[in-house]
Amino acid sequence: MSNVIDLKEVFAQPDRFMNQEVSLQGWVRNHRKQKSFGFINFYDGTVLSELQVVYEESLPNFEEIQKFAIGSAVFVRGTMVPSAGKNQQFEMKAAEVWLEGASAEDYPLQPKRHSIEYLREIAHLRPRTKLFQSVFRVRSLAAQAIHDYFQSNNFVYVHTPLITANDGEGAGQTFQVTTVDPDGCSRPVDYTQDFFGKKTCLAVTGQLEAEIFAMAYKKVYTFGPTFRAENSNTKTHAAEFWMIEPEMAFCDLHQLMSVEEEFLKFVVRTVMEKAPEELAFLEQYTKTPLTQKLGDFVQSGVARISHHDAIAALREAHAKTPFENEPKFGEDLAKEHEKYLTDELFHSPCFVYDWPKEIKAFYMRQNEDGETVAAVDMLVPGAGELMGGSQREERVDRLVARMNEIGISTDSFNWYLDLRRFGGCVHSGFGMGFERLIIYLTGVDNIRDVIPFPRTPGNCEF
Amino acid sequence: MSNVIDLKEVFAQPDRFMNQEVSLQGWVRNHRKQKSFGFINFYDGTVLSELQVVYEESLPNFEEIQKFAIGSAVFVRGTMVPSAGKNQQFEMKAAEVWLEGASAEDYPLQPKRHSIEYLREIAHLRPRTKLFQSVFRVRSLAAQAIHDYFQSNNFVYVHTPLITANDGEGAGQTFQVTTVDPDGCSRPVDYTQDFFGKKTCLAVTGQLEAEIFAMAYKKVYTFGPTFRAENSNTKTHAAEFWMIEPEMAFCDLHQLMSVEEEFLKFVVRTVMEKAPEELAFLEQYTKTPLTQKLGDFVQSGVARISHHDAIAALREAHAKTPFENEPKFGEDLAKEHEKYLTDELFHSPCFVYDWPKEIKAFYMRQNEDGETVAAVDMLVPGAGELMGGSQREERVDRLVARMNEIGISTDSFNWYLDLRRFGGCVHSGFGMGFERLIIYLTGVDNIRDVIPFPRTPGNCEF
Repeated sequence: MSNVIDLKEVFAQPDRFMNQEVSLQGWVRNHRKQKSFGFINFYDGTVLSELQVVYEESLPNFEEIQKFAIGSAVFVRGTMVPSAGKNQQFEMKAAEVWLEGASAEDYPLQPKRHSIEYLREIAHLRPRTKLFQSVFRVRSLAAQAIHDYFQSNNFVYVHTPLITANDGEGAGQTFQVTTVDPDGCSRPVDYTQDFFGKKTCLAVTGQLEAEIFAMAYKKVYTFGPTFRAENSNTKTHAAEFWMIEPEMAFCDLHQLMSVEEEFLKFVVRTVMEKAPEELAFLEQYTKTPLTQKLGDFVQSGVARISHHDAIAALREAHAKTPFENEPKFGEDLAKEHEKYLTDELFHSPCFVYDWPKEIKAFYMRQNEDGETVAAVDMLVPGAGELMGGSQREERVDRLVARMNEIGISTDSFNWYLDLRRFGGCVHSGFGMGFERLIIYLTGVDNIRDVIPFPRTPGNCEF
Repeated sequence: MSNVIDLKEVFAQPDRFMNQEVSLQGWVRNHRKQKSFGFINFYDGTVLSELQVVYEESLPNFEEIQKFAIGSAVFVRGTMVPSAGKNQQFEMKAAEVWLEGASAEDYPLQPKRHSIEYLREIAHLRPRTKLFQSVFRVRSLAAQAIHDYFQSNNFVYVHTPLITANDGEGAGQTFQVTTVDPDGCSRPVDYTQDFFGKKTCLAVTGQLEAEIFAMAYKKVYTFGPTFRAENSNTKTHAAEFWMIEPEMAFCDLHQLMSVEEEFLKFVVRTVMEKAPEELAFLEQYTKTPLTQKLGDFVQSGVARISHHDAIAALREAHAKTPFENEPKFGEDLAKEHEKYLTDELFHSPCFVYDWPKEIKAFYMRQNEDGETVAAVDMLVPGAGELMGGSQREERVDRLVARMNEIGISTDSFNWYLDLRRFGGCVHSGFGMGFERLIIYLTGVDNIRDVIPFPRTPGNCEF
């Protein structure tokens, strides 16, 4: 058994294994039986490709093999031989096939096309389909590419807390975390009796804590789960998702944009190199020019436009062909506006920077115009806002003034202000929703299908 | 500004930078002033080492520089020159020094030794000390090494859910996650009105979901936060910690042990290669033979002993020099027993396998003796149990029988049983608490000091 290898090795070096004997363990995706022989479409999950295993009646357990149901776990040993089949270079001529674990006739993944909605209901089996094998391998490879990029550029990976007593930036509605029994507690609830001695919730961001570490290590990043209790049933919202939040000392807004661009190109290029087969499958499945889109992005520049100039361009377009929503100075962009900028104006991703301060968070650096903050969103074709970042307000007086202005108490943020009092400096960071990235990379457009076990309103299965 | 480099580059290639001009941005850790010159101990967090920056009164802003307080953020430009100092190969002769951000006289990290307990209270500043710079860089490098090991061995990284409606394995007390207002809700609480339409909590393990993916990809791993609402105030317990849970199809208990050993050696070796300076500092700080311990582990084998034989050996030792707790067949090991096995019996880490079924989880594979399950703990000198794993029960009838026996309802685990009904196979996995690993790697023995912002009973700051 020790000489069992991963199917991936075989596909990586077909010449090396041709006419050699190989042992494999995996599963039956399809099984076609003839009178004196049979074909097993074998996969082991280490590579998207299946291997055709041909067995003949000369095998002592031929009749038993013919009963192996779809989904069975099997051991196969045999010789790799050139294949006469159209879509495969080689196949295995089996010397030995036996059952590792049976499957049943009611196995839901019979070889026919299942709707993505149906597969969502059987989230414990869907990773076995080629579609989800592709999505979740891309997810894994993208995660590794993210770590590789940051680590090779001297960023330190920081685990910011998930349970917190502050609600971060007021960035979203929170889930309460408690050991108080809501059926039996006193009213009003005495939170000194709760696990942490106070009211706590799940973090909506790790940014503020990441800033702590940026002031120590210069360049840091987080990569962890984040939670929003928003009652949104859209294709892009989940209550639990993963986020990457890099934070850099001595980095201003335009340097930040350069990092974002370099980072994203590295991740896209790496996934293209490591998962060409998965991307080809996804391109076919989604019927979109996926590899073209990603290849173009890696080659192209990323345009940069101020929010003011973007609105001006949008208003000009609006005058000719009206949008549903009129673009207005000082206001947010609608999806259709984002789409116009990337798909019509630039034909590429673009950065929109210097946003109206009223629609952005308190910690963003105030520009000299008194109207805008040094914030930047990166918009990409087909996925909208992929990253949001800003230069942070490092001037303690301006920061406190802004907090007072919008009614954020400074009491619980003394530690955050300390970062400005003790060697604070120009610094910037951004956040990227990991699922947004996976949607962009795979073309699969519903967040429920790019996260293993999605949590959405009313849905917490598995 | 674009030619500012990381201090790490300078220390990595001193010959290349000698007599060259370099620009850096970072912070003042110490500052000694003489009448006509001064020394700044400069660091930028990309490397543990400090650079001595020498400035002279010929600089136009000499008097201003002399006022730079400890903790200030600074820009320095100058030439790298050989140093006369004992502990440094080179220093910078400054051509330009200016302030990026001031610090105050009450900056808490003045150059003297602070107690680790005091530093814990200022968790927003402690990453700037050499001790915590070391700990948290080791943490970051260890995380990357873990990803590198698994990815290069064809494991797929899986994000298992953090919010869950089942309490996993009954492995620990859970935190409730809710959007119900405990002060205003109906009693009894109507959980159909809660965010997910039912009662939910924070996950204590991702193992069961990891098994889903192992049955699709053969080899997978998780690396994410985990939560326990245990009211324990010990050095090794935190309410929120990170865990790694690999899961492998077609892998039995003894193959699992081999993977655990290979994995851990890879991580230890990688950290030793990438963080020699940090480990040397930690060795000095903790006054333990840290590098010796880690080096020995990488070289040595890992002993394997059954729980039965371990108890027999412990009872023999007990007869000579009694333990506080008498070792008993069929019972758990106390800390002192673990210590005896690693430090006295084997002088190395060891695996203890085939544990009494009564003290282990329901999903572990039942051995033929009817008494034990195919579980294994890895014990390491100085850290006790570092990993816990098992072969999983793949026989659906045995699994259901065990669940009935100990009163676990199969209703909510139908998906878990499906994994056995449809192509289930021999499979195994283990869990490793990431902070346990960091304690082992750094010699810093309190979990509060190896996690950036520890959450323990009554403690949820930052």
